[in-house]
Amino acid sequence: MGGDHGPATVMGGADIALVRHPQIRFVIFGDEAALRPWLAKYPRVASACEVVHTEVAISMHDKPSQALRRGRKVSSMWCAIDAVKNGQAQAAVSAGNTGALMAMAKVILKMIPNVERPALAALWPTARGESVALDLGATVGADARQLVQFATMGEAFARVIFNLERPTVGLLNIGEEEVKGTEEVKAAAQMLRDTKLPMRFHGFVEGDDISKGTVDVVVTDGYTGNIALKTAEGMARLIIGFLREAMASSWTSKLGYLLASGAFKTLQSKLDPRASNGAVFLGLNGLVVKSHGGTDDVGFAAAIDVAVEVASADLVARIMADMERLKELAVLNGSEEIQIQESEAVLS
Amino acid sequence: MGGDHGPATVMGGADIALVRHPQIRFVIFGDEAALRPWLAKYPRVASACEVVHTEVAISMHDKPSQALRRGRKVSSMWCAIDAVKNGQAQAAVSAGNTGALMAMAKVILKMIPNVERPALAALWPTARGESVALDLGATVGADARQLVQFATMGEAFARVIFNLERPTVGLLNIGEEEVKGTEEVKAAAQMLRDTKLPMRFHGFVEGDDISKGTVDVVVTDGYTGNIALKTAEGMARLIIGFLREAMASSWTSKLGYLLASGAFKTLQSKLDPRASNGAVFLGLNGLVVKSHGGTDDVGFAAAIDVAVEVASADLVARIMADMERLKELAVLNGSEEIQIQESEAVLS
Repeated sequence: MGGDHGPATVMGGADIALVRHPQIRFVIFGDEAALRPWLAKYPRVASACEVVHTEVAISMHDKPSQALRRGRKVSSMWCAIDAVKNGQAQAAVSAGNTGALMAMAKVILKMIPNVERPALAALWPTARGESVALDLGATVGADARQLVQFATMGEAFARVIFNLERPTVGLLNIGEEEVKGTEEVKAAAQMLRDTKLPMRFHGFVEGDDISKGTVDVVVTDGYTGNIALKTAEGMARLIIGFLREAMASSWTSKLGYLLASGAFKTLQSKLDPRASNGAVFLGLNGLVVKSHGGTDDVGFAAAIDVAVEVASADLVARIMADMERLKELAVLNGSEEIQIQESEAVLS
Repeated sequence: MGGDHGPATVMGGADIALVRHPQIRFVIFGDEAALRPWLAKYPRVASACEVVHTEVAISMHDKPSQALRRGRKVSSMWCAIDAVKNGQAQAAVSAGNTGALMAMAKVILKMIPNVERPALAALWPTARGESVALDLGATVGADARQLVQFATMGEAFARVIFNLERPTVGLLNIGEEEVKGTEEVKAAAQMLRDTKLPMRFHGFVEGDDISKGTVDVVVTDGYTGNIALKTAEGMARLIIGFLREAMASSWTSKLGYLLASGAFKTLQSKLDPRASNGAVFLGLNGLVVKSHGGTDDVGFAAAIDVAVEVASADLVARIMADMERLKELAVLNGSEEIQIQESEAVLS
């Protein structure tokens, strides 16, 4: 029921996704009356789904706390996540309210042991193809330990989604030198260098390295990540607007545009935000994929693709194993810091 | 002597700037022998400048501390800033090492009273024209009070550079709602709303608002600002690369490109980073303009333009007056917080 276009996007997206993944089955939560015409329109979806009627739909403007109060156990969003918890579904996909989705997912699915907070991870188009970036705004700020957890989860996600054995991981910073940056990123870099994790840690990367594709996984806190993502989207929109304006400015440029229309289509498909739609909440004890609220059926199908890939590869189990190993490497249990504090206390 | 191309860029830029501002005079600090051929090449510059020979040039790789040790009183960078301090020049323009430039500027010029740290402010191309963004990386992180100082200085800069009486000011955040964001930006927004400053405070803006031109001044801390700037630059480069690739992909697209070459030139000039070159260190007791190290003479001339504009408008005096007013409005002297702490102490 979520997103700017509700069932139209979800049902159309399911129809497209079924062509690519004929083996998948859907459990669709929502208002049965609202869904009926779409089931008639998409017989392929109708024969591959079970519809569960829900009374309440979370609006895009509900605050997370309101959504939890109003939507607990009765909303389509709650029920879809609950289906992941009780094993009825392997992943939930929603185009709904991000804050509400995260709050409900945390309440229902709980966090993976040794992960302190969730991170929103998504694909970012680059000169080399695509990279994973996280956290894109699940939470605000992150300490060094949480950044190390994000790095570990992001690496697991990249292994699955890019089918890479050892993806490279970089920490987003304002310079490549070790002395630059916030205390949090400096300490996180130190931790990542010190651990014996089999991770290809590249070190710091800068803002322009994201689109260059310098590393497979770019790690940052949710505040910086969300601002970087939206700033990049804004810049892309500005340039495309300038390009459109320039091409319409004279009859020769219009003719040129027509001749090069194939090239412009290629460009458009490379920059199509629908292609990289589908962000995954990492760190939860179950898979929840967030589709952009404003996307269409093509974009929603891409988010379903992401869900299929991470569910088939059992991403949650992989992250659990990696977090367990990280804990064993004694980086995240805080023992070092406690020792330092104790010795300081002895000295003073 | 700074930047990737040394005197070539500086002298060529000075020549271009003199055409636009025939009234300006230069004091050029550097190795006399290295400058001589350029003085011969640019007679217009030669007749409008005084050359002061300096023995030491700060390299692009010197750490700020090294630069201060090695370059104190003897380097071209030090002497150029010192010329601002002793009134010989109204502004210093450098394409050199940013960290060294800021460290020296702080040591030589000192901070304006009531400003805790400097901010690097520059122009950002938008759908409406241009906006000011700060801090783009002078320091890492900023507390609420420092963000309010940045807002005040950025507004003064926008008044001067855009010739606007009351520019709009926005705080960069991950959502427009009051409940979102870091504690620092939330508290800064509260302070900006509470002050009786004659500032048009818009509230929060998101990353994509920068390129939209939603506000005239976008305020953020130096860590986020630097990452946002470089991420946007990276995205712009990626799109231009895709565009170039697409246009070269077939003979029809090549022909289309030729026909639309005027339009592509318009696009290129709109996105030319040289046009918005020249970032100002705000908060110092004197004007220092930082040119991009990799720019050419056209870009360096733009940085000189910025210096001319802010010097003619006496930006430092304006910022001083605004900071004085801000202090009088009792927002920055911490009296409110002290009262709250005291009453809590009484209660506990």
